[in-house]
Amino acid sequence: MTAGYANDWEVTNDAKLRSWVESANASDSDFPIQNLPFGVFSDSVNASPRVGVAIGDVIVDLGVLAREGLLVQDADLFARSSLNALIETGRTQWRALRVRLSSLLDARNTELRANADVCQRALVGQADACMHRPVDIPGYTDFYSSREHATNVGAMFRDPKNALLPNWLEIPIGYNGRASSVVVSGTPVTRPNGQIKLPDAERPIFGACRKLDLELEMGFIVGASSALGEAIACERAEDHIFGMVLLNDWSARDIQQWEYVPLGPFNSKAFATTISPWIVTLDALEPFRCQQPEQSPQPLPYLRHAGPHAFDVALEVDLRAAGEQQAQTISRTNFRLMYWTMAQQLAHHTSGGCNVRVGDLMGSGTISGETSDACGSLLESTWNGQRPLHLACGQERTFIEDGDELILRGWCQGDGYRVGFGACAGQVLPAKETA
Amino acid sequence: MTAGYANDWEVTNDAKLRSWVESANASDSDFPIQNLPFGVFSDSVNASPRVGVAIGDVIVDLGVLAREGLLVQDADLFARSSLNALIETGRTQWRALRVRLSSLLDARNTELRANADVCQRALVGQADACMHRPVDIPGYTDFYSSREHATNVGAMFRDPKNALLPNWLEIPIGYNGRASSVVVSGTPVTRPNGQIKLPDAERPIFGACRKLDLELEMGFIVGASSALGEAIACERAEDHIFGMVLLNDWSARDIQQWEYVPLGPFNSKAFATTISPWIVTLDALEPFRCQQPEQSPQPLPYLRHAGPHAFDVALEVDLRAAGEQQAQTISRTNFRLMYWTMAQQLAHHTSGGCNVRVGDLMGSGTISGETSDACGSLLESTWNGQRPLHLACGQERTFIEDGDELILRGWCQGDGYRVGFGACAGQVLPAKETA
Repeated sequence: MTAGYANDWEVTNDAKLRSWVESANASDSDFPIQNLPFGVFSDSVNASPRVGVAIGDVIVDLGVLAREGLLVQDADLFARSSLNALIETGRTQWRALRVRLSSLLDARNTELRANADVCQRALVGQADACMHRPVDIPGYTDFYSSREHATNVGAMFRDPKNALLPNWLEIPIGYNGRASSVVVSGTPVTRPNGQIKLPDAERPIFGACRKLDLELEMGFIVGASSALGEAIACERAEDHIFGMVLLNDWSARDIQQWEYVPLGPFNSKAFATTISPWIVTLDALEPFRCQQPEQSPQPLPYLRHAGPHAFDVALEVDLRAAGEQQAQTISRTNFRLMYWTMAQQLAHHTSGGCNVRVGDLMGSGTISGETSDACGSLLESTWNGQRPLHLACGQERTFIEDGDELILRGWCQGDGYRVGFGACAGQVLPAKETA
Repeated sequence: MTAGYANDWEVTNDAKLRSWVESANASDSDFPIQNLPFGVFSDSVNASPRVGVAIGDVIVDLGVLAREGLLVQDADLFARSSLNALIETGRTQWRALRVRLSSLLDARNTELRANADVCQRALVGQADACMHRPVDIPGYTDFYSSREHATNVGAMFRDPKNALLPNWLEIPIGYNGRASSVVVSGTPVTRPNGQIKLPDAERPIFGACRKLDLELEMGFIVGASSALGEAIACERAEDHIFGMVLLNDWSARDIQQWEYVPLGPFNSKAFATTISPWIVTLDALEPFRCQQPEQSPQPLPYLRHAGPHAFDVALEVDLRAAGEQQAQTISRTNFRLMYWTMAQQLAHHTSGGCNVRVGDLMGSGTISGETSDACGSLLESTWNGQRPLHLACGQERTFIEDGDELILRGWCQGDGYRVGFGACAGQVLPAKETA
């Protein structure tokens, strides 16, 4: 195989690799052979959720390969409704599995390709599959690590002259989210009811959210647990990360504004959080590692790490307005802009001894750039509804309306290929009647 | 059996019941036959964690009873390291199980008592047992429902004249806690390190917490899941509760003060939360139901419920200072003082569509009375360290010192017996060295 890599497994990221799965070789496919993200799927032939890997427009059913003796793992490991057991086997195992899959799917390898019967059973069209939430999530934490987002929100609701709170440049601020309501892309999202305090009202009302918003985020999935009392060193924090997803942290702004002091957001963010179904491994993202923004003041020692720890992931938010066929891109930004890195987030999270567990989901916080067409929320791009978006279809939006579908997309641009995340989509349904 | 109950199962609460397990008949036993709390234990004879019920000074090993055909449940249900599977069988099942156990342990019943061999295997001394965390906790939510506590904290850190924030009387305020670090009573608690901003310092330091505190709380365990999008009606919310525990929400006040704006407490409460090992069922608490404090203004309709929804549980905090043999009670209060009820907390939690799951833990928030000897935290009883506690042993305390053990106790006082919770204890170990 190709030489010249720092680590053996990096051969899987070679830009020149091509697959015998032809659809994977298209330059705009999210799932080239360099990606090989893991997910959980079922289909009409087999309704049992099971582990698969995306390549081109198909899914490789890993259980079929294991039963055929093409993988060293026991097939049972893949007959699961979540990836947790696979992740629990450890990085050496899943890294070796990805290397093996890269080899089996390589255009130069006939081992699998030549066996039409196995291929027929092992390859399932993505169009025919139903994707499931890929992991059981024992804990969901959401950070707040975009300086631009924190500045926008601070300017809007607190003090424009001191938009960034004093602790923000010292702490990768985060809070505990609600894990039970994390859903996979495609799950409809019902507009929440909640307490809303209108500006001139004496008391709040209970009713449907009037300021429903998205938050464009990425999330990482913890790949190795830590013990209670054990702080994960910043320099080694990435060893605890399995991979990444896109994440929409749906937010009810009016509910949030009334409830969040002093203990933070609760019902305003607990009705749904959508993640993309494919977990792109940190290994697949390695070629797109890049330098994070300069941090000033220099972080405290427990938050320092040498070298680049950001990742260059182009991001966009598409809105398909209710009743329209076409979606329109309403925001474009990049994950590399985040002030705090994933490694710093994880080091901070565990710095007091809090343990993390395999499958834990850690959201980045809303990812915003510096301009209004690079905002990760409508709150920011419409400045709390004051500057409506004028859509090409003729509609305008301040916040999300019933029937709107929001679609997040993200990809790392390689030379002639891209390592993509697929879509993270959800359509909003009307609120339920209140009693 | 005794007649005159609204429901058949209430016979288990008859004050006149006596058990052939003599230690259960002592008036100061936490575990009379009227209690029968569920837990998970192991012992030196059998190191496998398994389900048991406390009575007097012993534990009934339910798996042994099931294997002997004394219970209708399959023994597998009890060969678990958590109660979740048992709780999942539903209220009809666990209620019937408790009724059956009450009968088997009744002084008038020889069915089990007469079989010395089975008794010898089924009854394990509590002194010989190791207790485990009784449930897997998919989600941990902590409320803030004591008016006295919220008023004290507001007066101390915000504005004494407007101590209660405007939303507090409308919303049972809560936030998502960290489930991974919930530990069972007896687990040592390591003092956390974290970012601390000293009053005159330009930047924070990273070091050991200097203001380590307890929070006296109770917690309830969700006994029936709800679906995403489903609001649980306040009137029916108690149907979703399995039982209650004591809870110590250990808090690092200095870390908390620096980190909590704007998204709430994070590392300051994530290093450990201790719960008592025995879950006292809501059925066992039924005789101690009482009227909650008057709520003014009247809550919004979704938070209304007729009748009494508080529970009369006497509570105390004992401190065994480092190096001392004797513990001293430093606070006495009662759970019945809480402004918001558990039913209102659960109705609010799900009012926006957030789903709850079996095993979810919901903390009450710190339980404080009106006087300084009824506070649920040292923050309040020492007024943020300004008024040290003078202990009988000669030591004084502002906050918790290394080696101190904190013990929470709680019980419902019946006529000649008490339904108790056992102890919720934890000793504080010194912080780890920072890098």
